[in-house]
Amino acid sequence: MALPEVICVRDVEKYAIAHLNKNALGYYDSGADDEETLNDNINACKKLRLRPRMLVDVTKVDCSTTILGQKISFPVGIAPSAMQRMAHPDGEIATVKAADSLKTCMTLSTLSTTSMESVAEASPNTLRWFQLYVVKDREITRQFVKRAEMSGYKALVLTVDAPVLGNRRIDVRNRFHLPPHLSLGNFEKVTLHIEKNKKSDSELSRYFVSEMDASLTWKDITWLKSITSLPVIVKGILTAEDAEMAVRVGVEGIWVSNHGGRQLDGVPTAIEALPEIVKAVNNRAEIYADGGFRTGTDVFKAIALGARAVFVGRPILWGLVYNGQKGVEKVLQLLQQEFHRTMQLSGCVSIKDIKSSLITYASSYSKL
Amino acid sequence: MALPEVICVRDVEKYAIAHLNKNALGYYDSGADDEETLNDNINACKKLRLRPRMLVDVTKVDCSTTILGQKISFPVGIAPSAMQRMAHPDGEIATVKAADSLKTCMTLSTLSTTSMESVAEASPNTLRWFQLYVVKDREITRQFVKRAEMSGYKALVLTVDAPVLGNRRIDVRNRFHLPPHLSLGNFEKVTLHIEKNKKSDSELSRYFVSEMDASLTWKDITWLKSITSLPVIVKGILTAEDAEMAVRVGVEGIWVSNHGGRQLDGVPTAIEALPEIVKAVNNRAEIYADGGFRTGTDVFKAIALGARAVFVGRPILWGLVYNGQKGVEKVLQLLQQEFHRTMQLSGCVSIKDIKSSLITYASSYSKL
Amino acid sequence: MALPEVICVRDVEKYAIAHLNKNALGYYDSGADDEETLNDNINACKKLRLRPRMLVDVTKVDCSTTILGQKISFPVGIAPSAMQRMAHPDGEIATVKAADSLKTCMTLSTLSTTSMESVAEASPNTLRWFQLYVVKDREITRQFVKRAEMSGYKALVLTVDAPVLGNRRIDVRNRFHLPPHLSLGNFEKVTLHIEKNKKSDSELSRYFVSEMDASLTWKDITWLKSITSLPVIVKGILTAEDAEMAVRVGVEGIWVSNHGGRQLDGVPTAIEALPEIVKAVNNRAEIYADGGFRTGTDVFKAIALGARAVFVGRPILWGLVYNGQKGVEKVLQLLQQEFHRTMQLSGCVSIKDIKSSLITYASSYSKL
Amino acid sequence: MALPEVICVRDVEKYAIAHLNKNALGYYDSGADDEETLNDNINACKKLRLRPRMLVDVTKVDCSTTILGQKISFPVGIAPSAMQRMAHPDGEIATVKAADSLKTCMTLSTLSTTSMESVAEASPNTLRWFQLYVVKDREITRQFVKRAEMSGYKALVLTVDAPVLGNRRIDVRNRFHLPPHLSLGNFEKVTLHIEKNKKSDSELSRYFVSEMDASLTWKDITWLKSITSLPVIVKGILTAEDAEMAVRVGVEGIWVSNHGGRQLDGVPTAIEALPEIVKAVNNRAEIYADGGFRTGTDVFKAIALGARAVFVGRPILWGLVYNGQKGVEKVLQLLQQEFHRTMQLSGCVSIKDIKSSLITYASSYSKL
Ligand SMILES: Cc1cc2nc3c(=O)[nH]c(=O)nc-3n(C[C@H](O)[C@H](O)[C@H](O)COP(=O)(O)O)c2cc1C
Ligand SMILES: Cc1cc2nc3c(=O)[nH]c(=O)nc-3n(C[C@H](O)[C@H](O)[C@H](O)COP(=O)(O)O)c2cc1C
Ligand SMILES: Cc1cc2nc3c(=O)[nH]c(=O)nc-3n(C[C@H](O)[C@H](O)[C@H](O)COP(=O)(O)O)c2cc1C
Ligand SMILES: Cc1cc2nc3c(=O)[nH]c(=O)nc-3n(C[C@H](O)[C@H](O)[C@H](O)COP(=O)(O)O)c2cc1C
Repeated sequence: MALPEVICVRDVEKYAIAHLNKNALGYYDSGADDEETLNDNINACKKLRLRPRMLVDVTKVDCSTTILGQKISFPVGIAPSAMQRMAHPDGEIATVKAADSLKTCMTLSTLSTTSMESVAEASPNTLRWFQLYVVKDREITRQFVKRAEMSGYKALVLTVDAPVLGNRRIDVRNRFHLPPHLSLGNFEKVTLHIEKNKKSDSELSRYFVSEMDASLTWKDITWLKSITSLPVIVKGILTAEDAEMAVRVGVEGIWVSNHGGRQLDGVPTAIEALPEIVKAVNNRAEIYADGGFRTGTDVFKAIALGARAVFVGRPILWGLVYNGQKGVEKVLQLLQQEFHRTMQLSGCVSIKDIKSSLITYASSYSKL
Repeated sequence: MALPEVICVRDVEKYAIAHLNKNALGYYDSGADDEETLNDNINACKKLRLRPRMLVDVTKVDCSTTILGQKISFPVGIAPSAMQRMAHPDGEIATVKAADSLKTCMTLSTLSTTSMESVAEASPNTLRWFQLYVVKDREITRQFVKRAEMSGYKALVLTVDAPVLGNRRIDVRNRFHLPPHLSLGNFEKVTLHIEKNKKSDSELSRYFVSEMDASLTWKDITWLKSITSLPVIVKGILTAEDAEMAVRVGVEGIWVSNHGGRQLDGVPTAIEALPEIVKAVNNRAEIYADGGFRTGTDVFKAIALGARAVFVGRPILWGLVYNGQKGVEKVLQLLQQEFHRTMQLSGCVSIKDIKSSLITYASSYSKL
Repeated sequence: MALPEVICVRDVEKYAIAHLNKNALGYYDSGADDEETLNDNINACKKLRLRPRMLVDVTKVDCSTTILGQKISFPVGIAPSAMQRMAHPDGEIATVKAADSLKTCMTLSTLSTTSMESVAEASPNTLRWFQLYVVKDREITRQFVKRAEMSGYKALVLTVDAPVLGNRRIDVRNRFHLPPHLSLGNFEKVTLHIEKNKKSDSELSRYFVSEMDASLTWKDITWLKSITSLPVIVKGILTAEDAEMAVRVGVEGIWVSNHGGRQLDGVPTAIEALPEIVKAVNNRAEIYADGGFRTGTDVFKAIALGARAVFVGRPILWGLVYNGQKGVEKVLQLLQQEFHRTMQLSGCVSIKDIKSSLITYASSYSKL
Repeated sequence: MALPEVICVRDVEKYAIAHLNKNALGYYDSGADDEETLNDNINACKKLRLRPRMLVDVTKVDCSTTILGQKISFPVGIAPSAMQRMAHPDGEIATVKAADSLKTCMTLSTLSTTSMESVAEASPNTLRWFQLYVVKDREITRQFVKRAEMSGYKALVLTVDAPVLGNRRIDVRNRFHLPPHLSLGNFEKVTLHIEKNKKSDSELSRYFVSEMDASLTWKDITWLKSITSLPVIVKGILTAEDAEMAVRVGVEGIWVSNHGGRQLDGVPTAIEALPEIVKAVNNRAEIYADGGFRTGTDVFKAIALGARAVFVGRPILWGLVYNGQKGVEKVLQLLQQEFHRTMQLSGCVSIKDIKSSLITYASSYSKL
């Protein structure tokens, strides 16, 4: 049976929603509490208007940029998302290979269903970052960092917005669990002490409570930097105050994110938080953004607001469901083509042309 | 038949709406006139965005606070709501016991279906406040105050937004009446002269017209304070001007409320009115808020705006319908867990960390 | 068959919509062009919030006021609407008698289906105003003015927003016509030269084109004032500039109105236009408002913004359909009761207490 | 079978949508990407409020104006739209004749299904403008210009917002193609090298990639002006910056447009962009606007904001589908009648009366 044609990310999403089982779909798709932030993410870009410039020669457009000094073919990377083998048997391996094809960056989650070594081996030359969750036992964390270094990951993305897990109601209702034939690849040696029969809560929630370290502070970033030579990115920053803190402790990157609406409900979207953070950081670190980016135009808006690159989470999972590695490639291609076209139609031939004068708030037009 | 699982207050609400009879549901659920304020209450919190801070050690979080010097385990109390035995045979007794379990405060309505003495006896050590409606005969009022003091109520909550009853259309249509097997517990000796056969209007409306005192002024607070040693809280304040008046006559607490959208339609929500009142009061009295709070995040927002505690009305009634005392406990537990999690995900370990810098209006993000 | 109970104006409206024929309903209910203004009228009041004051003795409330020196029992009058006998056989006679019962003012339309003399005779002591359309033949206009004076009308309401008829699509589709058994009472002697067989357009539209004077200017008000001793009110003002003009030519009243959304689509509502007009007029003339007022709270908001009285159009027609004179009385009673209650719940005991500090824009609450 | 009556442009639109085939309807109706801009166009005018002035003699109203010195009977012209013979066999010939009847201007698209010479011949005395797409081979462009001059076109409308084609998803899904019996009239001698069997993309998209010149810059306008004596209008300007550029290179007209939402999604509507452009141009060139204008009131608003004329795209196509030349005439008549009435009801007797004081933003009314 032929796959249906997909010409935008929403098409891929629709396919995935129709084909995933309840347990996995709930986990992938849902947000925390009332899902206000989840919905806000999707609509955030609509409040911005592009101010395109005409009559620029756009026959040749260069969409490429660098992140932490490494070239990517266009400013869209792959956000870390856990347990990708629920979406497709090839899981993280398919994802990294797609990143390789499109010449962009894959961020591997601590909670992947494939070990970081296997992912590295499958695509050794791809730009790979490792997303780090700090577990209570710091020795395990230290090993994670060392293994990431050894396997050629080029940065550590420390997720700071999840000291405890967000309240994803659907997962609680579904008693979300990792299917028995899968396991968390990076924890091969680490025994998970999860009470299997507890009636309420999701498995992941119990896992977080038992293993994750809610005591993490800015000092731990200093510690982290002391044990690694890799650049450190903090993921989950939403205020200028924290961005300032991050710069002071010496991070190389600030990843503006509300975790796809999965952690605290009622917070700003990345698009909303970007301006105050861009201003506060003032070029002292690179700034990335994620959450709800679904078209090349969405991406362009974030870049115009000052992000260096945008990352996508769920679209990658939908791509996996659609067609494994090829599905992820399709998603990335669509975003790349749309971004390329948006650059052309805005009069930009290189990333540095995407200035803040090319964007404004829709509400700014309601004054005579 | 097992009760369905509930994982948020809305679940309890849905259950209650499906299980209450028309007369009681109409009374509990409806608002005044076009129900604009009723709806505004539910949506008010969505206009605010949290600005969570990361990398704070949140392994230990203390949600407790004090109201008028008394400790409660988290800043959510029970608002006074009349006639709780229509929701469950145990009515106010179930409610006070649930307040006791969760270590929070129960405010008993003047119009309870259980006498204040029985409520006190059922749970003598619970923090209880008595909500006072001043009836035309001041001697009855004086007796109410004395009985409240004797039964160990710790404050008088004088409701000032109901000189006459709001126009709740559904109650008029239903000819709302207290079922014959129930009575207003605090009025055992007080004969209610209500014309039973009047065709239009609701019973409660006739009752208000005949018994309640629409002549109450600020001077009566001075009188009230002169006959009691209990702290006085005025409930139903919506403007800075009235808050200033309240402080001047010496009240200990100001309860910002639109009476759950049941009195005057078209007024601000508590969330809207809080900032001007917090500013005017300037710490000269404690400030509480109610109306439409349904999640722990909603509560957090009110605290960030300067409220000392939030009170909930209908959720308690839904809890009673769901499962009596256990149902109310469930509602309070859900709010407590959500509030606890919101504190953790916002980087707060004690109530005093919940500063106004942690909150902003969504609209503040629409400026470059 | 008993009439269904009605407890708010919307109930009466629903009844009327279900019981009127297509031709009359289309004419009564519709607005011009895309009906944006018609809809805006209904929603305009929702953008305002009341700021009620508590602890005022509201046992005795006086809703009465005066308009042009004449007392009315509450600040709601009857706007002129044409052809009321399509709604009920008693038509304008029923309306004037209801005005009499409720002790308020009835404005009779030039295009009434009952002559101004018959209306006067039916209710000689009611406060009656005559709405004037200036027809091309100024002699007819002069006769109208004289007849109005003779029949005891107390003011001339000159409608200035209809030099040509608004484009009410439903009337065009329905080829709206006055049923053959009815006639325009004030034009008994005036032959209407209307081409009966013209295929498109509504009858009223043809009538306006042939009879009404689109050449009216501010000078004609001077002329009008020269031929009458009655006070003159201009109806249909929407800008401060025109209000200033009106005051300069010496009108006694300014009636802020968009003609119930029936003339120019896309204009402000009365609620929107009031503030600039109140400011410009600065007490040099009385100010009235109409358009979309459906509850006592709506009325209260207009008074708080500076209107002296509010007028209602369609609700009167719905009342007629519902139950003739008694139906109109019911509509007025509902508005009066609601307005009375709004005064009580806002802490007002007389009209002069309804100050602008009791009202604000909802949007004003979205700033920290 | 008789045609259904149509009394507003929406009626014509509904008819056309019900009668066109999928391929043509998709092409005519759709917009780029998420169609946000397409929808914004339709709603843009609703954010503005008219401030009509009363008591002006409006018996005689002159709707006529001039564009580039040529008189038109009212300020609505016909925007260029490609391939009109898909809508009706008479296509562009019907359109130009309708423009002639209504005494307005027709802009012929480069991509017409009738040659510019045939259109000229069919209606030699009509005010005609030629919309120019610059193709890669400049010699072809030069020939187009010469042919337009020879055939009596009075201006060149250079479309600058389409260096590449917008991403119209529906056309991609439909594999949009020009039906085999039709051809691009202006390209009779020009061979189009389009890969017929390519599976994805629309035919037009492939055509653009192969023929259109994405290298166009402001310098090419200087070149264009050097090879023609016709006035040059740039179509597709959305920012003050580009308007300033256009004035500097000496264009005679600036056509504010987002190409009917068909090119870059997420840009301002013409109504939004007009004020900044009007201000920047400061009368140094004429300013036109298009996109979503569907009523005479919409047109009036653009004129009040400073546009010299408005152009309509899709309504003309709907008119063609409805009834060929007569259908287009009907559309133009409706707009003219509505515009005429709007002038009367706003107190304007000539175009120059339509001042900016007659308009304001709806949001400006939400301040006390
Ligand atoms: C199913 C799923 C799992 C995720 N797992 C992780 C994770 O393990 N670590 C992490 O830092 N973020 C995780 N995220 C958050 C993503 O990195 C990213 O912030 C978010 O998905 C971006 O929003 P989007 O899905 O709308 O693109 C996950 C997101 C989803 C949807
Ligand atoms: C059924 C019901 C009865 C109420 N009875 C009283 C009352 O007797 N006295 C009082 O001061 N407030 C009363 N209230 C108002 C509540 O104290 C509180 O202000 C309101 O319910 C808060 O809004 P919420 O229901 O959205 O939480 C009542 C509210 C409800 C819903
Ligand atoms: C059916 C109908 C007929 C009307 N006829 C007249 C009229 O003859 N003269 C006039 O000045 N206004 C007329 N109006 C406008 C009303 O006086 C008034 O401005 C409008 O109805 C107020 O809006 P409302 O209907 O929402 O209350 C008419 C309105 C309606 C609905
Ligand atoms: C089917 C269609 C074809 C079009 N073709 C052209 C074209 O060939 N050249 C051009 O400059 N604009 C073209 N346009 C854009 C129109 O000139 C105009 O900008 C737009 O249609 C205005 O929006 P409206 O359709 O909402 O009135 C086209 C528009 C449509 C709908």
